[in-house]
Amino acid sequence: MIQNAVGRLIPDLSDRGLVGFRGVDQPPLKSNQVAPAIRTCSEFPANGDKRVESLREALRMSGLRDGMVVSTHHHLRNGDAVAIQLFAAIRSLGVRDIVWFPSAVFPCHEELIPFLEDGTIHHIEGSLNGPLGDYASGGRMRGLAVLRSHGNRYRSIQDGDVHVDVAVIAAPASDHFGNCTGALGPSACGGLGFAMADAEYADRVIVVTDHLVDFPCVPWQIAGNHIDHVVEVNTIGDSTQIVAGTTVLTSSPERQRIARLAAEFVDAAGIVRDGWSFQAGAGGISLSFVVFVQEIMARRGVRAGFARGGSTKYLVEMLESGQLGAILDGQTFDLEGVRSMRENRSHVMTTPWNSYCAHTKGNFASMLDCAVLGATEVDVNFNANVVTHSDGRLLHGIGGWQDALLSQCTILAVPSLRNRVPIIRDELTTVCGSGELIDVVVTERGIAVNPRRMDLIEAVEGSDLPLKSIAEIQAESEKLAGGKPARVDLDDELIGLVTWIDGTVIDTVRRVRTRA
Amino acid sequence: MIQNAVGRLIPDLSDRGLVGFRGVDQPPLKSNQVAPAIRTCSEFPANGDKRVESLREALRMSGLRDGMVVSTHHHLRNGDAVAIQLFAAIRSLGVRDIVWFPSAVFPCHEELIPFLEDGTIHHIEGSLNGPLGDYASGGRMRGLAVLRSHGNRYRSIQDGDVHVDVAVIAAPASDHFGNCTGALGPSACGGLGFAMADAEYADRVIVVTDHLVDFPCVPWQIAGNHIDHVVEVNTIGDSTQIVAGTTVLTSSPERQRIARLAAEFVDAAGIVRDGWSFQAGAGGISLSFVVFVQEIMARRGVRAGFARGGSTKYLVEMLESGQLGAILDGQTFDLEGVRSMRENRSHVMTTPWNSYCAHTKGNFASMLDCAVLGATEVDVNFNANVVTHSDGRLLHGIGGWQDALLSQCTILAVPSLRNRVPIIRDELTTVCGSGELIDVVVTERGIAVNPRRMDLIEAVEGSDLPLKSIAEIQAESEKLAGGKPARVDLDDELIGLVTWIDGTVIDTVRRVRTRA
Repeated sequence: MIQNAVGRLIPDLSDRGLVGFRGVDQPPLKSNQVAPAIRTCSEFPANGDKRVESLREALRMSGLRDGMVVSTHHHLRNGDAVAIQLFAAIRSLGVRDIVWFPSAVFPCHEELIPFLEDGTIHHIEGSLNGPLGDYASGGRMRGLAVLRSHGNRYRSIQDGDVHVDVAVIAAPASDHFGNCTGALGPSACGGLGFAMADAEYADRVIVVTDHLVDFPCVPWQIAGNHIDHVVEVNTIGDSTQIVAGTTVLTSSPERQRIARLAAEFVDAAGIVRDGWSFQAGAGGISLSFVVFVQEIMARRGVRAGFARGGSTKYLVEMLESGQLGAILDGQTFDLEGVRSMRENRSHVMTTPWNSYCAHTKGNFASMLDCAVLGATEVDVNFNANVVTHSDGRLLHGIGGWQDALLSQCTILAVPSLRNRVPIIRDELTTVCGSGELIDVVVTERGIAVNPRRMDLIEAVEGSDLPLKSIAEIQAESEKLAGGKPARVDLDDELIGLVTWIDGTVIDTVRRVRTRA
Repeated sequence: MIQNAVGRLIPDLSDRGLVGFRGVDQPPLKSNQVAPAIRTCSEFPANGDKRVESLREALRMSGLRDGMVVSTHHHLRNGDAVAIQLFAAIRSLGVRDIVWFPSAVFPCHEELIPFLEDGTIHHIEGSLNGPLGDYASGGRMRGLAVLRSHGNRYRSIQDGDVHVDVAVIAAPASDHFGNCTGALGPSACGGLGFAMADAEYADRVIVVTDHLVDFPCVPWQIAGNHIDHVVEVNTIGDSTQIVAGTTVLTSSPERQRIARLAAEFVDAAGIVRDGWSFQAGAGGISLSFVVFVQEIMARRGVRAGFARGGSTKYLVEMLESGQLGAILDGQTFDLEGVRSMRENRSHVMTTPWNSYCAHTKGNFASMLDCAVLGATEVDVNFNANVVTHSDGRLLHGIGGWQDALLSQCTILAVPSLRNRVPIIRDELTTVCGSGELIDVVVTERGIAVNPRRMDLIEAVEGSDLPLKSIAEIQAESEKLAGGKPARVDLDDELIGLVTWIDGTVIDTVRRVRTRA
C-alpha cells in the first residue's frame, strides 16, 4: 500500500498502468493522445445510407467479441431504453464478458443486473449509483468500478487509457448517414455531448434512433462522418424522465435555507456582478440556489455573462429575460432546456472536452466565478466525498463534480446531518476531491470558508452571514447526533477505484460487509 | 521514372515518402491517424484569457523557428489581410525558410512574393494560382508546390503526412478564449471550415481577430479549446472581396449556353427529381447552371434535398423559397451566404472532413446526385486538368475539384476553346483527375457522355440534347482552331506535384521555359 497526495492508502496498481494521486495540478502521464485507426470512404456506401436492420446486426458487423468495451451515454437519464436493448442484443449473439463503459447509470438500469449475473456484462467501468452501485458495493460485480468524472472520461479516451471497441449512441434524431442531434424528435433530450469522445475515438460507432429524418439532419450535434452504422428502433426512451432524480427543486425548509445562504454568500463576497458566471449542478439545493441568486440579480439589476452545467427551466427563463448572456449546456435537465437549445443560438451544447477535460487548452470549469455543488461528506480539511454514503455504499454518481471543483469559488452546499449522521467528519469514507479546491461549505447551521481563501473571508467580513469554522459546524452537528459518526464496517476487498481528473487514483472503494 | 495508374511518368519520390497514384479507390498507405501532443489546462490562464499583445509575440510564444510549417486559410479569399501581417511579423522575428501551408491563395497574395524572395518563406505547399502560381511556374520558388485538394489537405494533416507547427486562423469574431466564428463581426465571411484540421492537429494555434466579443462567442464554429493564443488586430481583411474572382455569373452567351445545356442534361437524365442534390463549384458557368436548374425546378415544382459547396445568393434564395432543404456550406461565396449561415439553421457550415476527406466514414461528395465543375483541359479519355493552363503555367487553384469528382454524376462544363486553343486534347498538360470519375463533358458545341456511363447515355436517348462523342467535339474545335494545340515547351525541372485525394502523386508540374 502506498499513500497518495491526499493521504489515502492505495494498493500498487501499476499492473493496470495506474498511479496514485499526485496533487491537483500535475503534468500528464503520457505525451501524446491516442491515434485512431484510419478509416476510408471506400468502406461505406457511396450514397451515405448506413442503415442496418437491427442493433444485433450492427453489433455483428462491428465485430463484437467477448471481453470488448462497449459504451453508452446518459442523455436520456432515467428514461433510457437503449442499454437494455443493447445488452439483450449482445446476449442474443452469445457474446460475454463485456466491459460496459457508460457515461453514467440511473436507477432504470437496475434491469441490467441479470446481464451482470449471467456473464453478458463482466463489469461496469464508470460512475455508478442507485441499484447498480448497491450491487457493486455488495461485492457482486466481477471487475472494478473505475469511477471517472465527465472530464476524466473524455480524457481517458482521448489519451488512450480506455479503448472503446463499440460505442452505441442513442440519438433522438438521425439521418441515414448518422448525422444526429438530441434537440429534435419525439424523444428529444437536448445535447449529446457525452457521446463525443466515443464518436471520435471508438473503433465502431452505432447510432440508434427512433426518429430517422431525411439527410441532412441539420444542425447535427454529432457528424455522421464518425458513424459506422445507423439502426432504427421503436423507442430510445422516455425523454420526460430526464427530469428524474436530482433535477427537482428542494421543498425542505432546511435545504432551502442552505440554498439561500449560498446565494447570500456569493452576493456578499462580491461575486454577483455584471458579467459574472456560475454553475449549479443537479440536486435540489443547487437548483434552489439558482432561484435565490436570480432574485438577488433581479433586485440589483445584475446580468450574468453565462451559466454552465445542466440546463433547466430556471436558466432558460434567465436567458430569455436577458438576465443571462448564454447557457453553456453540458447536459439538458428538462424539456424547457431542450426547447431552448433547439431555438436559441445563445444556448449551446458543450461536450466534456469543452467544459471539463483537464487535457485541453483550458476549459470552461476554471472560468466560472462560482460553482455550487453537493457532497455526501466533507472533512475538516475541506476534502470531500460525493460517491459513497457514510454507510460505505456507492450510491451516487461522480458526474462532473471533480471537474467543477476547478471554479474560482467552489461551494459545497450540504445539510450538516443526513439521517442523523453528521456529514462533516474527521476522515472521509471516500475522498473524491482535495480540500485545496473547495472554498466554502454552506450548511443550514452556518458557512465555513476554507482558511486558504483569505480573500473570500475578508470579502464577507462585516456581513450578517452565519460564518463559522468548519470545526464549529462539525461540533454542533456531532452534539445533535450524539457523537461522531460510527466507523463504517468495510471489507478489504476492493470494488472500485476513484480516479482524479488526470487519471491518477485518489481513493479506493471497498466492499460493504454488512448491508445497511 | 515510373508510370502511375493514370499513365503519367513521375520520378521516384520515395525519399519524400510519396508513391504514385494507384487508382481511385485504394486502401490507405498508413494504418493510423497522427496522435497530437497532450496539452493541459495548467499551461493556460484559469480565467480563459489567452490574449497576447501582437501576432509577433504570439509567434514568439509559439516557439517559431526557421523551417517550420505555418498555415493560413482562405475564408476571406481575395480580401485576406492576415497573411501579409503574419509574414511581416515572422520577418521581424528574423525567422526564415518557413513552409507556408495555406488552404488556398488568391491574387491579393502577390504581395508575399518579396517574402519568398528574401527567404522568409521557403516555399508554398498548397494550391497556387494567379501571381504566385506564375511565380512558381517560372522556377523561382525554392521548394516544390505540393498541390492538395481541400479533402486531401485535411487528410494529409489527419494522417500525419503534414505536420503544422503553427496555424494562424483569421477569425471575424472571437472571444478571449479563442471560441471563434466567421458568421459575426464586421469582417464576417461565413464558415471557417478550412481551419478545422489545423485547429485539431497543429502544435500551436493562433486566432487573429478584428472583432473581440465577450466570452462566450456563441455559437462558435471553432472551439477555444483548440486555441493557444488570441491576437487582436485592426483588420483581418475585407469580406466584400469574398465574391472576387470566380464567384460571378457568366455574362458570355457561349458560357451561358454551356450552363443551360448542363441544366438541361441533368433534367433529361432524370436527375432533377424531388429530394435530389447538387454541387456547383465556383466559376461563372457553374453559378449560371444553378440559375438555369432553379428555373427548371420551379417550372416542374421540384424541391432539392440539399446543395453542397460554395454558398451564394442563388442558393440562399432557393433555401428561403423552400426549393432547397439545406445548404451544406463548404465555403461562403458572398455576403448573402454569410447572412443566411448566421440566420438559418438549415444553412450549415461544413469542414473538408465532413464533405471531402477520403479517410473518414463516408463523406458528402459521393452522396451528391450531380456536381458541375470546371476544367482547364480534358483528354479524349475524360481525364482532366484543373491547375495548369495549356501554356503550362500553374494559374488555377485545385480547390475541392478532385474531391467533388466523386459525385454520382460529375459534369465538366467547359468552353471547347480558350483563347483559340482547343481544351479537348490527346494528352493533358497536367492530369488532376482520372476519367473514370468524370461522367459528362458539356461544351457549347455539344455534350459528350463518358462511354462508361451507359446508364446516363440511355437516360438521355431520344432527348433533343446535342449529344456527341468527345472525339467529335475535339475534331470540331481543332478544325476551328486550325489544328491540334501546340505542345507546350516545358523544362525538366519539377516545380510542383499534384497529389490525389489519398496522398499519392497523380502528376508533376514542370517549369515553364518560355513565359507565355
